Amino acid sequence: MYSFSQLTERVARAIDGLSFPQSPETLYLPVRYALLSGGKHVRPALLLMCTDLFLQDIEQKHVNVSLGVELFHCFTLIHDDIMDRASLRRGRPTVAGKWGANTAILSGDAMLIEAYKLVCSAADSGALLCAFNRAATEVCEGQQLDMDFERLPAITEEQYFAMVGKKTAALLAASAAMGALTANAAAADVQLLYDFAYKLGLAFQLQDDYLDVYSDAAEFGKATGGDVAAGKKTFLFAGTAAALPERERSDFLQLMQSRRLPAAEKVAQVKQFYDKANAVQRLKDTENALFHAAMQNLALVSVPQERKEPLESLALALLQRKE
Amino acid sequence: MYSFSQLTERVARAIDGLSFPQSPETLYLPVRYALLSGGKHVRPALLLMCTDLFLQDIEQKHVNVSLGVELFHCFTLIHDDIMDRASLRRGRPTVAGKWGANTAILSGDAMLIEAYKLVCSAADSGALLCAFNRAATEVCEGQQLDMDFERLPAITEEQYFAMVGKKTAALLAASAAMGALTANAAAADVQLLYDFAYKLGLAFQLQDDYLDVYSDAAEFGKATGGDVAAGKKTFLFAGTAAALPERERSDFLQLMQSRRLPAAEKVAQVKQFYDKANAVQRLKDTENALFHAAMQNLALVSVPQERKEPLESLALALLQRKE
Repeated sequence: MYSFSQLTERVARAIDGLSFPQSPETLYLPVRYALLSGGKHVRPALLLMCTDLFLQDIEQKHVNVSLGVELFHCFTLIHDDIMDRASLRRGRPTVAGKWGANTAILSGDAMLIEAYKLVCSAADSGALLCAFNRAATEVCEGQQLDMDFERLPAITEEQYFAMVGKKTAALLAASAAMGALTANAAAADVQLLYDFAYKLGLAFQLQDDYLDVYSDAAEFGKATGGDVAAGKKTFLFAGTAAALPERERSDFLQLMQSRRLPAAEKVAQVKQFYDKANAVQRLKDTENALFHAAMQNLALVSVPQERKEPLESLALALLQRKE
Repeated sequence: MYSFSQLTERVARAIDGLSFPQSPETLYLPVRYALLSGGKHVRPALLLMCTDLFLQDIEQKHVNVSLGVELFHCFTLIHDDIMDRASLRRGRPTVAGKWGANTAILSGDAMLIEAYKLVCSAADSGALLCAFNRAATEVCEGQQLDMDFERLPAITEEQYFAMVGKKTAALLAASAAMGALTANAAAADVQLLYDFAYKLGLAFQLQDDYLDVYSDAAEFGKATGGDVAAGKKTFLFAGTAAALPERERSDFLQLMQSRRLPAAEKVAQVKQFYDKANAVQRLKDTENALFHAAMQNLALVSVPQERKEPLESLALALLQRKE
């Protein structure tokens, strides 16, 4: 049995070992740059942890599938950064920021195809490709919904969960299911792990929404709530809009759409509305409920309880993270 | 045995029958729009003709693979039109022109994933996916080379063939090979059909380069040579640059880079250089040589000669086309 950090190290080594053609350098240099951008490799490690539940050892073909998921995730970041006009990611210039949108479009496309090559290389069953295909479509749909929502004055919590379910949770869920599928797990266990990771993904996104406003960095002004500044439709936003009485609600929506206020000032005012609506409490309650439902799914997977410990630790760590 | 037009009709009906989710409409409306843009469906029809060489009848799963190739082609057009800032294609606004670059990026991504779903749905062997994956990468590399070449003052014929081999010929070749693979053809026949379609693809591109300058439409000024106006590196360009003596060569390269001359005037002057370099004759000779080499590959495929007649007619029609 492997820990999360052992598996992320194995994934990092495997990424280092990936070889791409030398030419055209204008295509593959950005591909390599994006891949080596210091991501946490949560998805491939989660996939391998789910394989590790059922098998005595992890083979190269399992690692290849996990790299396919990582490359897919990386492709979405390259293209999202064009659409969001983001020039920085993890403190470095984005591909679009460094080489321009055209190179980012095409190297993202090439990365998506490389992701498919890796998943195909280990797909002895159609089920693995089906799971991957489904998540791939959902991630695109989620990104489209996210962009659509930017133009709406408000969204409901139901709309919020439909969006982050596709944009964030679907790929985590597919990663877990694919890990189980490559280990030839029973269909019921595959579904349980899918559900486990899906709910964990939703809770993870709630924590992300929370940290954007309430992390130490945000509190001490090192970074201001980027979501608030950009008018993103987070869970705190949806919950507050739903809970406030009519007049305050319209003040709140107007404030959220403001682009003139300095970011720190806007965040401070927005927080007052969040407080009135008791939005943080509602977020924490929802997050805990999702976490416990996820753990119940995991508990039902038909392997000895002690094999599930690494997954339980990962779930707890994802939700207790402070940044 | 089916003719080319019977198969393009079957492909068109199958495209009409494809169903996409209703929501998000902002994602799937552009996908449907791009698919129903009145393309000639050369690639899927070629694929099915190669299946038809070996089988008594064409089944839905073969049609699905052919649609996968068509959707892939369609994805490349959507993204190429962003990169080329093209607002019109086949007389209609491009996806980027109609909905903006962000929608074009994301609906292109979704289209590529749909293409994979269709190919996966019929892939009972890894060979089919391998052929598709390889071509998909080559098409991206070819597009990158095409963009890289726009910044170079000149390219050699060898560089030209490396670029169009990837950008144009690779997908036609893969289509032919995939058609044979879905019919469980012998490996030697798969390779012969790949080579046949690859050479045909190069010849097809040469004819494209020729028609851009010498079609009736171009001759009578209805449309001017778009490649010449944009400074694209065609075969006529590469051949002329290679054949001219040093001083005329530098005049020619300077003329090609000019963006100030009116398009019709530039084309007229460029044609004089093409004449001096005997570039059209060289193009026609090369095209004929490729055509005959392609036909020799086809002749060696191990099915009765009369079954090859539809493919021979298609090859001839592609090269004799006037627009």
